[in-house]
Amino acid sequence: MEKSIWVLRIGQRYVRDDRTLTHLCLVSRALGAERIYLEDAEKDVTATLEEVNRTWGGNFEAVLGASWGKTIKEAKKEGRSVIHLTMYGLPIQDVAPALRELDKVLLVVGGPKVPGKVYHEADFNVAVTSQPHSEVAALAIALHEIQNGEELKRAFQKSKLRILPSARGKRVVEN
Amino acid sequence: MEKSIWVLRIGQRYVRDDRTLTHLCLVSRALGAERIYLEDAEKDVTATLEEVNRTWGGNFEAVLGASWGKTIKEAKKEGRSVIHLTMYGLPIQDVAPALRELDKVLLVVGGPKVPGKVYHEADFNVAVTSQPHSEVAALAIALHEIQNGEELKRAFQKSKLRILPSARGKRVVEN
Repeated sequence: MEKSIWVLRIGQRYVRDDRTLTHLCLVSRALGAERIYLEDAEKDVTATLEEVNRTWGGNFEAVLGASWGKTIKEAKKEGRSVIHLTMYGLPIQDVAPALRELDKVLLVVGGPKVPGKVYHEADFNVAVTSQPHSEVAALAIALHEIQNGEELKRAFQKSKLRILPSARGKRVVEN
Repeated sequence: MEKSIWVLRIGQRYVRDDRTLTHLCLVSRALGAERIYLEDAEKDVTATLEEVNRTWGGNFEAVLGASWGKTIKEAKKEGRSVIHLTMYGLPIQDVAPALRELDKVLLVVGGPKVPGKVYHEADFNVAVTSQPHSEVAALAIALHEIQNGEELKRAFQKSKLRILPSARGKRVVEN
């Protein structure tokens, strides 16, 4: 069964042209999430996503301006499990079997400043290694593990362009 | 058997405080690569990596200033397979079984401007979805798939600090 995955980005102030934020949005979209909640962002992020949807398909969306507390509360109310990605959490390879059982998920991606309360609100605190690296990479591996690789097979509806995978070179077709 | 993985970043000019470049380095380190080749970078990247090694262990290194052509040539000469990550390539879920057979790998991460020749020099052109997202995420999933998740179990030697994974909160010990 296809899961319903939402992503929530917390603990980072928005700066214009923040590549990390854009990457978090695009990775969420490409790897099977339905939407991303951003506490603090500007319209240029939404514009980028609309352009990507128009060209490459699907209807992924960014929700701007909701507080993390409210987003977690509402997610729980409608039966979502909250998975918080943190290098201090339990190894993803150990909890992946449990995570794959969940149908509805809110995946929380922390920035440099995550309130301590998030660790307690979360149903799972999960580490993609206990080494410092990248929230973009942690999100990607988590989406991949939770969906057991199924997200890679997904087709995006209503795209203007589509890539034909090839061993050499670039093949793109217009739909 | 543990694989030997090198990463090569090509096709992007260096800008100071480039978070993407730092993330590529840290993800390579955290997920089992031995080193990363950067064509165009400055000493602050090396300094960051040295600090991370000192605190969190291991001896990952960045090699600065080598041309991509030379790096690929030398990698091939010593028997490495060249895997180029590109959204135009073959789906990683299809080629992963073949990639897992390789002992020595050079994983090439393209930036916005990748010379066409790279597609022909590569033994494998591999896509982590054919959707636009993030080279950091593509690198993470590729490292994860090539090593079949074994990289997550890796311990880093000679660290100053070590995290004790926990269900709630933060536990760090000094070694």
